[in-house]
Amino acid sequence: MPTPEHMQQTVDNYLAAINAGDMQAVVALYADNAEVEDPAGTEPKRGDDILEFYTNAFAGGAKVELTGPVRISAKAAAFPFRAEITRPDGLVIVEVIDIFDFDEAGKVRKMTAHFGPGNMTVRGG
Amino acid sequence: MPTPEHMQQTVDNYLAAINAGDMQAVVALYADNAEVEDPAGTEPKRGDDILEFYTNAFAGGAKVELTGPVRISAKAAAFPFRAEITRPDGLVIVEVIDIFDFDEAGKVRKMTAHFGPGNMTVRGG
Repeated sequence: MPTPEHMQQTVDNYLAAINAGDMQAVVALYADNAEVEDPAGTEPKRGDDILEFYTNAFAGGAKVELTGPVRISAKAAAFPFRAEITRPDGLVIVEVIDIFDFDEAGKVRKMTAHFGPGNMTVRGG
Repeated sequence: MPTPEHMQQTVDNYLAAINAGDMQAVVALYADNAEVEDPAGTEPKRGDDILEFYTNAFAGGAKVELTGPVRISAKAAAFPFRAEITRPDGLVIVEVIDIFDFDEAGKVRKMTAHFGPGNMTVRGG
C-alpha cells in the first residue's frame, strides 16, 4: 500500500514535472496499465496515448500550482490546482481538481481531472 | 443529462442542508440506488445507511463552506470544502474534496469524500 508521504510526493512530482515541461517525468508516475480520464466523463486515454496527450496539452508551456491541501485517503490523492496554459490563442487559466488512484506499487493507476467550461478563463489572444 | 447549473445548485443545496442540520434534505439529493464512499477507499454506504451515516456524522452540528470553485464536468461535480464538526471531544476541522457523480435524472448516484488523517485538526476538548 502506498504511504501518505509517497502519495503527497507523487502529487508534488507531478506538478513539478509539468512546470519543468518534462512530460516523460509525468508519464513515469503512471502504472503501465494506467487510465487518464481528462476531463471527467470522456473516454480514458491509455498506453502511448498518455504521453501524446500531455505533450499536446502543454506544448506551449504551463504553470501549475496547488490552491489548497492535497486530500490523501487510503489509496487516493485529490488535489485542487490552477493551471495557466500557454496556447497559440492566448493564456488559458483552468481551475482543476485531479484525483490520483494508486496501485499497490505506488504508481498512479487512474487519473481523473475534474473541470469544465465554467472553470476556464481565456486571456489575451 | 444534468445541466451545469443543476449540478452547481445541488452542491449549494448539499452544503446548505448540512449547515441547517437537515439530513433529510441531504439525503433527498441522492438517487435511490446511491452509494456514499466516505472516506474514499471504504465500503460504500447505501439505502437507509446513508441517512444514518449523516445523522451520526453531524449529530453535534457542523459548519461547511466551499474553499474554491466547484469543478463541473459532463456528469460530475468536484468541490473543495472545509467542515467544522462539533464533537463531544471538541471541534474537528476537516479539509475535504467531495465528488458527486450524477445520474440522468440529476440525482447524486455516487459520492466520494477525499480526506485523511492529515487533513484533520482537532481543537479544544
